[in-house]
Amino acid sequence: MSIPESEQQLLLETLKAFLRIPSVSTDPNHKADILLAAEFVAAKLRSAGLAEVQLISGAGHPMVYGEWLGAPGKPTLLFYGHYDVQPPEPLDEWISPAFEPTVRNNNIYARGATDDKGQALILMEAVARTLARTGKLPVNVKFLIEGEEEVGGEAIEAYVKSKPARLQADAAIICDSEMFAPELPTICVGLRGIIYGELHITAASQDLHSGVYGGAVPNPLQAAAEIIAALKGRDGKVAIPGFYEAVQAPTMAEREAWASLPFNEEEYRAKEVGAKQLTGEPDISVLERVWARPTFEVHGIKGGFIGDGAKTVIPAKAVVKISTRLVPNQDPAIANRQLSAAIAAACPVGVTAEWKLIHGAPPCVVDTANPFIEAAATAMERVFGNKTVFIRSGGSIPVVGLLQKELGQPCILMGFGLPDDNLHAPNEKLFLPNFFRGIEAIEYFLEESAKA
Amino acid sequence: MSIPESEQQLLLETLKAFLRIPSVSTDPNHKADILLAAEFVAAKLRSAGLAEVQLISGAGHPMVYGEWLGAPGKPTLLFYGHYDVQPPEPLDEWISPAFEPTVRNNNIYARGATDDKGQALILMEAVARTLARTGKLPVNVKFLIEGEEEVGGEAIEAYVKSKPARLQADAAIICDSEMFAPELPTICVGLRGIIYGELHITAASQDLHSGVYGGAVPNPLQAAAEIIAALKGRDGKVAIPGFYEAVQAPTMAEREAWASLPFNEEEYRAKEVGAKQLTGEPDISVLERVWARPTFEVHGIKGGFIGDGAKTVIPAKAVVKISTRLVPNQDPAIANRQLSAAIAAACPVGVTAEWKLIHGAPPCVVDTANPFIEAAATAMERVFGNKTVFIRSGGSIPVVGLLQKELGQPCILMGFGLPDDNLHAPNEKLFLPNFFRGIEAIEYFLEESAKA
Repeated sequence: MSIPESEQQLLLETLKAFLRIPSVSTDPNHKADILLAAEFVAAKLRSAGLAEVQLISGAGHPMVYGEWLGAPGKPTLLFYGHYDVQPPEPLDEWISPAFEPTVRNNNIYARGATDDKGQALILMEAVARTLARTGKLPVNVKFLIEGEEEVGGEAIEAYVKSKPARLQADAAIICDSEMFAPELPTICVGLRGIIYGELHITAASQDLHSGVYGGAVPNPLQAAAEIIAALKGRDGKVAIPGFYEAVQAPTMAEREAWASLPFNEEEYRAKEVGAKQLTGEPDISVLERVWARPTFEVHGIKGGFIGDGAKTVIPAKAVVKISTRLVPNQDPAIANRQLSAAIAAACPVGVTAEWKLIHGAPPCVVDTANPFIEAAATAMERVFGNKTVFIRSGGSIPVVGLLQKELGQPCILMGFGLPDDNLHAPNEKLFLPNFFRGIEAIEYFLEESAKA
Repeated sequence: MSIPESEQQLLLETLKAFLRIPSVSTDPNHKADILLAAEFVAAKLRSAGLAEVQLISGAGHPMVYGEWLGAPGKPTLLFYGHYDVQPPEPLDEWISPAFEPTVRNNNIYARGATDDKGQALILMEAVARTLARTGKLPVNVKFLIEGEEEVGGEAIEAYVKSKPARLQADAAIICDSEMFAPELPTICVGLRGIIYGELHITAASQDLHSGVYGGAVPNPLQAAAEIIAALKGRDGKVAIPGFYEAVQAPTMAEREAWASLPFNEEEYRAKEVGAKQLTGEPDISVLERVWARPTFEVHGIKGGFIGDGAKTVIPAKAVVKISTRLVPNQDPAIANRQLSAAIAAACPVGVTAEWKLIHGAPPCVVDTANPFIEAAATAMERVFGNKTVFIRSGGSIPVVGLLQKELGQPCILMGFGLPDDNLHAPNEKLFLPNFFRGIEAIEYFLEESAKA
């Protein structure tokens, strides 16, 4: 099923067309682009030969549902992906524009190249190719491609809860993760959860001159700094009371497996991260820190003056964007209450601090003992020629917990991204050979799943 | 010399025309407006009847110099003001647009209304009126109106140092301060100095996904918070080692005079500041905290994502805008070194923190024992009908220290702003009766100075 070069060119053009749509889900100005991307997905599924394809509109951005159920008696797979992308900012750090997909060194650079348009397209093209070649699929397939993954929208949750029969499947395939290393086929069996929100700090009733008032009035940026510094220690440990109580350590077997992965901490620091020193909890390995430990991260602080030059303002208010990542068995609702209480306790005098949750998702681990994980491992090994490894990811894919909990589906996270793909950052890319090998691997997976 | 209503209307129209020019000195996009404002000043001085008016260009924004030296044997006064203004942001908090001057409740609202276009115009109109009425002035007058006060530009410093003969005067009059309370004529006899700069914090070589990397990599916003929290205590005391060593406490006489001022702390908190609690060093009075104690204030923190919604980014770098206000006898160069060293000491592992000074100015106090201060007090009392009080200001007017040091001129800070004029903030205003009474007071001051 290896893909001839002429076909690769066509697949690449389709990928570029998909990537050109600036479907930034968090930005209301891109509502039309979101709809365009959803329609692109629907058109792709229709042209692939799926019998039933629907745009599901309602609250939030539309989902696309499609199905091919022509293999009675065979397993049913639910394929998940998302067509929405992160904002491209900061724009001036992109070598080529975020929404003008450009190939350099066998990589395609564009926002969404890996996360997740490229990978969602891998699923769709694999099904399209198998149908084109054989006129049928070896298993039944359902697609659910959403447009709110990057904003934690609730449309998919409501839909999954309301349509358990329609979405019934023997396993869900999520193609939104990465390989541990180039050439190393990888299945992700654990994800961190998240709570993301805004800390609103208010001080005076209007901005004040720092000369006239400085020394007697509260500064919400100073308050923000004091609260942030109080909530995480310099040792990297989150200082929210009770935060670690529910944290379950990885098993001995997991730790051993992780230790045997080809991971070079110095190379990771120097080449992948590019910082002068890694940070975080001492005496805990890097992989465990990013896969199995909760975090507290500040994403932005709004308030005052950040233009060129000098403005001597004490702002009236500040907003801090904060997330914490959660690990088994932390509960997002409990963690949110703990964070909210810790903020109240750390709030200095003179200001009001209010925590506003934007979205949350639970952490999860996937039980590896199921035939579809075996099918996935076999399919990937066949394409990449190496034994498949099982890892966790530090990211959060809310749909995994949702499908596990609501539909009881085992979730198979097969991903073809690479560690240096710059997800959520400027110069996001997808290694093109992995785009094509991903399609091949999913085609083999369809075959292998028929035996499951 | 009270101003008839028909003349008031004309003066108001001139003020509005001046305020309409968005002469924001810190923003390179307003270069043409800066030039327009300078030309407005030059035209005003020419039409007032000054013999020699010049635009002084060079590095930075132009200054305007003008002189009338037709009173041989009489004292010479140097009138200082500035035509540049602070940025108007945040724009959406202005009730009427910042550069569309609008009169409401006897106040004129616009950026620069008080700071300092309105007050610079008071000086120019007083001279114009006296010349129009009598054909001459009772003293010799020189004007120096600059365009870089809000950005601490160095053009005026170079000019003052290079032209001591031209700028020679018996006293300098700076009209850029405020009255302690409505109807209470006020002369400011002390100013805080300042150092203003940017703290540049760099962590990774690019923005990173907080899911994939969170827990193992430095976050420059977290580092910013830790450094800020380390440099000022929750008790309001600046925690920069050595920072208070040179601080000279106000004299007993000053403290007594300040205690007798009509100051209601609760009203100040509730109406002027609008915060739920005042902050700052305990056991030090509010007026002493803002007039005679140094500060550490954060003005803005750039880095990461502050748009709508959620973006899970760990930024590669952050920039923090910081100032400290300085009091006698702190030295800006020493304070800058102390701050720089304290930042280095507070910098957490994994990041680089670099302090970049933008500008600095020394604190100063003015000796009240000189005849021009007496003339000013008398002139103001005549207009306002109350005894003139002597206060300090927490702000920084770099030219005062410069004129004192380079030319040995006593600086008289006569100001007609009010405490609720929203300097540097949205809805800056000038109380219109003070605009007209200010002109009257300066006219009396010209008369009184002739006797000095």
